[in-house]
Amino acid sequence: MSRVAYVNGQYVRHADAAVHVEDRGYQFADGVYEVIAVEGGVLIDEQGHFERLGRSLTELAIAWPMSARALKVVIGEMISRNTLRDGFLYLQITRGVAPRDHAFPAHAKSSCVMTARRARPYDSNEISRGVAVITIPDIRWKRCDIKTISLLPNCLGKQQARQAGAYEAWLVEAGGLITEGTSSNAWIVTADGELVTRDSSAAILNGITSQTVIKLAGEEGMALTRRPFTVDEAKAASEAFITSTTTFIRPVIRIDDVAIGGGAVGPICGRLIACYANYLDRQRAGG
Amino acid sequence: MSRVAYVNGQYVRHADAAVHVEDRGYQFADGVYEVIAVEGGVLIDEQGHFERLGRSLTELAIAWPMSARALKVVIGEMISRNTLRDGFLYLQITRGVAPRDHAFPAHAKSSCVMTARRARPYDSNEISRGVAVITIPDIRWKRCDIKTISLLPNCLGKQQARQAGAYEAWLVEAGGLITEGTSSNAWIVTADGELVTRDSSAAILNGITSQTVIKLAGEEGMALTRRPFTVDEAKAASEAFITSTTTFIRPVIRIDDVAIGGGAVGPICGRLIACYANYLDRQRAGG
Repeated sequence: MSRVAYVNGQYVRHADAAVHVEDRGYQFADGVYEVIAVEGGVLIDEQGHFERLGRSLTELAIAWPMSARALKVVIGEMISRNTLRDGFLYLQITRGVAPRDHAFPAHAKSSCVMTARRARPYDSNEISRGVAVITIPDIRWKRCDIKTISLLPNCLGKQQARQAGAYEAWLVEAGGLITEGTSSNAWIVTADGELVTRDSSAAILNGITSQTVIKLAGEEGMALTRRPFTVDEAKAASEAFITSTTTFIRPVIRIDDVAIGGGAVGPICGRLIACYANYLDRQRAGG
Repeated sequence: MSRVAYVNGQYVRHADAAVHVEDRGYQFADGVYEVIAVEGGVLIDEQGHFERLGRSLTELAIAWPMSARALKVVIGEMISRNTLRDGFLYLQITRGVAPRDHAFPAHAKSSCVMTARRARPYDSNEISRGVAVITIPDIRWKRCDIKTISLLPNCLGKQQARQAGAYEAWLVEAGGLITEGTSSNAWIVTADGELVTRDSSAAILNGITSQTVIKLAGEEGMALTRRPFTVDEAKAASEAFITSTTTFIRPVIRIDDVAIGGGAVGPICGRLIACYANYLDRQRAGG
């Protein structure tokens, strides 16, 4: 069955999904997005994604293209029309189509585009395969808390990682502090067993999966500190991992040329991967 | 006669000009652009725009969608099909269409889109009307020398200017130095008669009109210094102005709440506006 996309009120074949060249998303990166995981036909963390979407739109003064309730109906329709059991929904909203001018148009209607793709369901064994990261300077703008489509520096960083044979690049601001990955949040476990991830601020995206893992760590009674950490601290860590909607939790077993945790998945990361599997089971079961 | 756009090999009605939603320009701001003025049917500073386009593509490792020679043929065709005597050509090149993944796709073909719009020809009297600017923090990324479509912070800044009743916003980096405007370069004339604009670096776009004005100032024997200047220095200036492809040279007669040059167009800016008119006449005449 062919893939279906949603474009401004129409369900179309994915191959035919098109927007006008003067959509401000295309000319100015003037838009926001969310990627939502679907497991067993159920949207994971739907509320968190909608809240963040609302915040992104508010920060940029972009109008909702329709009510949140109507958007959820479209999402349901996309899951149904794509017979999407496990995979991801991509949702993008831009300020709409208008003659090119940097200032906001007076009368544009927000554009709304959705695509779906299938993926294998969450698999603790697959997720447990460790990955390598590199560290590179964070050259992004100063509002990384807004989930915008202005992702060129993230693309450049990810490509640099791939070319170095790594899975992700951790971005380092002046002073040696790691902000986050190009498409994931960064975590370490210090030699003292302290679980650390950066506090939310304009420097990072407030990850939905990160928020879930914070909650799960709390339920497990793990000591968690939200603070920035340096590259040196990360390389001396006993464990490291990343979180994101598309990778869930993924152990990091190498940072630049330094093996972390002897190159194997550590106990805390392993526990969180298992907790996350249970969390998804509960979501699939409707709670 | 209806407007014609060029999209990946096709000349189409402007209203029908569309790209796929997975064009990386739409999802990642992974592309570059140029705006070229047309005066009397002649492209202004064609070589400068092509050189900068080539540099932008190289910096991002995006392939030319066709040879520069072929691109010039398409531009000529666009001028002809739009019967464009005076106005602007907008040219955008992205990394192409590929399933969404931050890293560069292995096999995408660069997308190429062009639009045309008419405008009144250069008019020294109209150009001489002074405008107001505000100063706001520069929150952009660290590679503003590349002319990318990642323009969201520029849009936010321009909108802030418009809401403040100003024409442009000058962006101020930490330390109080002005980098440039959201879509123009910034110039001042100090009380001592020193003409100042910032030296090119990763912090600003190397403006084509700016380069032309630098050349014209040299021909006029004006003392020019390329260095950063502060907000305080700008507010104490005897003249100020902006340059860009779409505004040419435009006097600035107010910065925030401070009137510049008594609110009138200064003699140096006036001379440069006249020189630029002569320059355009020479270009129209073929050199």
